[in-house]
Amino acid sequence: MTQLELARSGMISPAMERVAEREGVPPEAIRKGVAEGTIVIPANVNHSRLDPCAIGKGMRTKVNANIGTSPDYGDVETELEKVRAVLEFKADTVMDLSTGGDVDAVRRAIVAACPLPLGTVPIYQAGLEAVEKYRSLEAMTPDDLFSVIQRHAQDGVDFVTVHCGVTQAAVARLRKEGRLVDIVSRGGSFLAGWMLHNGQENPLYEQFPRLLDIALKYDVTLSLGDGLRPGGIADATDRAQVEELLVLGELVEAARAAGVQVMVEGPGHVPLDQVVTNVQLEKRVCQGAPFYVLGPLVTDVAAGYDHISAAIGGAVAAAAGADFLCYVTPAEHLGLPDPEDVKVGIIAARIAGHAADLVKGVAGAWEWDNAMSRARKALDWPEQARLSMDPARSLRVHAQHATAGAACSMCGAFCAMAYAKKYLGGGKGRVSGVFDT
Amino acid sequence: MTQLELARSGMISPAMERVAEREGVPPEAIRKGVAEGTIVIPANVNHSRLDPCAIGKGMRTKVNANIGTSPDYGDVETELEKVRAVLEFKADTVMDLSTGGDVDAVRRAIVAACPLPLGTVPIYQAGLEAVEKYRSLEAMTPDDLFSVIQRHAQDGVDFVTVHCGVTQAAVARLRKEGRLVDIVSRGGSFLAGWMLHNGQENPLYEQFPRLLDIALKYDVTLSLGDGLRPGGIADATDRAQVEELLVLGELVEAARAAGVQVMVEGPGHVPLDQVVTNVQLEKRVCQGAPFYVLGPLVTDVAAGYDHISAAIGGAVAAAAGADFLCYVTPAEHLGLPDPEDVKVGIIAARIAGHAADLVKGVAGAWEWDNAMSRARKALDWPEQARLSMDPARSLRVHAQHATAGAACSMCGAFCAMAYAKKYLGGGKGRVSGVFDT
Repeated sequence: MTQLELARSGMISPAMERVAEREGVPPEAIRKGVAEGTIVIPANVNHSRLDPCAIGKGMRTKVNANIGTSPDYGDVETELEKVRAVLEFKADTVMDLSTGGDVDAVRRAIVAACPLPLGTVPIYQAGLEAVEKYRSLEAMTPDDLFSVIQRHAQDGVDFVTVHCGVTQAAVARLRKEGRLVDIVSRGGSFLAGWMLHNGQENPLYEQFPRLLDIALKYDVTLSLGDGLRPGGIADATDRAQVEELLVLGELVEAARAAGVQVMVEGPGHVPLDQVVTNVQLEKRVCQGAPFYVLGPLVTDVAAGYDHISAAIGGAVAAAAGADFLCYVTPAEHLGLPDPEDVKVGIIAARIAGHAADLVKGVAGAWEWDNAMSRARKALDWPEQARLSMDPARSLRVHAQHATAGAACSMCGAFCAMAYAKKYLGGGKGRVSGVFDT
Repeated sequence: MTQLELARSGMISPAMERVAEREGVPPEAIRKGVAEGTIVIPANVNHSRLDPCAIGKGMRTKVNANIGTSPDYGDVETELEKVRAVLEFKADTVMDLSTGGDVDAVRRAIVAACPLPLGTVPIYQAGLEAVEKYRSLEAMTPDDLFSVIQRHAQDGVDFVTVHCGVTQAAVARLRKEGRLVDIVSRGGSFLAGWMLHNGQENPLYEQFPRLLDIALKYDVTLSLGDGLRPGGIADATDRAQVEELLVLGELVEAARAAGVQVMVEGPGHVPLDQVVTNVQLEKRVCQGAPFYVLGPLVTDVAAGYDHISAAIGGAVAAAAGADFLCYVTPAEHLGLPDPEDVKVGIIAARIAGHAADLVKGVAGAWEWDNAMSRARKALDWPEQARLSMDPARSLRVHAQHATAGAACSMCGAFCAMAYAKKYLGGGKGRVSGVFDT
């Protein structure tokens, strides 16, 4: 039985127990959310090392880190190194988006090594194999695609992105309205091309029950991909994007009816004043299904710093109800991220998620900030570092410029915090110097 | 006559002409905004090298970069190097917050070198000089303070932060309610201590007309500082902060009545769901005076990455009407920023400001993003770099991993953009590889 089926039958599974403990909420709250479909617990029955996490309403906002080979770079060792960075900097899930080398071997190595829920986008591998087999991507058959999905499910992948909403009708809407940047989702682009070339409907849509059978068997959570997500803010929330979302809403109902856990993916590039709209639209149209957003990037011109653009959009989205943030690294739009980019991308997304958790009533969120404030007032630098998202960096930057007193090198003896204590009291860590003479 | 007096008399000054040209709006729109006080043009009559900029309603959101010596670090040469970084990465204004070395020499060198509007916080130097003169900060006299303000004005400083709203009543409110982090503004901390020690009212409040006289003579824009701004999100929007804001609102009226340009400073550390509230409150209470925010930081735990926390808060604040963002660097809360921190801090704040400009109807904002989208679709890498905020970084990251085709190393031959063209048309820059076999 899937977690959804278990929850509906009134059972609290070990995975529900575990995520309740991690979230600091009663197990029954988890069971109820899973039963309603507002919470998912991606937990493939074959992922034996998994420490499950919950994604959805009332849960801490989760962060996903994408790793994986490209056609030109990466191998098993490189990807396992990225997994270690992902664990160290505390992403909640990881997606293996490999498109080069021995894709099966990379995926299996990650499943074996990684306690985080693992996601994949099977159509990437299906595309690669079609080129190998037929020397043509468009010659891929629906059976080829489903066989890759089955392989990923059997290997223990916890959630798969499936672009089921890229229908002929949605692509027609896109062509009718026109776009500045057309299609930027790899899966969406591939499927649209395949459909236009072959004059057929999207097999992931047409044979959705077949997908549900696989998902049900292994309890793979479906992550309904947004293949027509905007690739520039000018294309955001256009008719093609919304049409696709309407289809995804219908498929959410179908998946839930079949006992399959399901979440929905969202944009992408979205101007700041449309971010909340996008979240509300998804929540309404997809009946409260967990919302997994990529960014959203609130401007197109931040190349080299797109993790910041994504953090702005991600924080606003999560505060409005988005449940799951896919990280964007500083290398986005420019090239393959290196391990430092992975780290910075994770931390930026965690800042966004936590900023949202503070205002959406997530258990325990405020305690963290308040502990930091107390450590600041006390000028307790080791404690400040311990409480920061990247303790090593905090210690290094602090140590970079030495000062005589307890204050940092920004103000030195001219420390407001230390001076305020003289008249307002409290805290340890007196500073000697200008203010104290 | 100040810009405000000129505008009220119906005159369009050369500074108004120039900022109209820079903003792409009619000069009369600038004159009207300045006359109403919703726009300021900090332009000291003695700052001969100044290329003026406008801050306020309908204007592009501006970014300030803080530089200056600390008691332990910095000298004229170091600070001029920071000025060059500030100009290269396109902050709109610069504040010299020097608290060490020859503060007069540093300030005069910056005025001479820098075409950007320059701001200072005169009370820092007044505090330093009091310690030198009396060996006690609390022994500073109001005359000492006003003489420093006069010196800064005469030297050509375009705007000064003056914490006029830290009144005995506001400090009493702070003590009555209690705070997690008390006072974190250096000026606010110093003034509160001075007031409590001497049992006197804040001289900047009590002798506000004296401040207006100096400002009027040199056309120094007053930036009414938030000396009781929260230093942790738990303290945000508390009674002390709001009390201070109410006083600032009254002083805005008094300044305008005297013909003095005035803006208002805001927090600080603010949870995401209080950011818009803070902007609306300032705009209402201070009758549309330009709002200059520091961050706001939406979480306390992002040390080492506070530029990201600030970009989230800054974007939301600016979209709600904040006009001027003070940058926060990655070194915030840890130590003195180095030139790389200055650069990253500026770019993060510019991303936030631009994300807001896109949604608040600033002239020309969308053209930039749309040009980037077109360059992306065309896989035109030099043009993408040219359009990015940090062209050198864009080029470097892109070149880091070589690929065979026109696409970047993220997807290589598996490029969605390139594949979409095959079926949806448009753009130059075909890619050969997987998708094209």
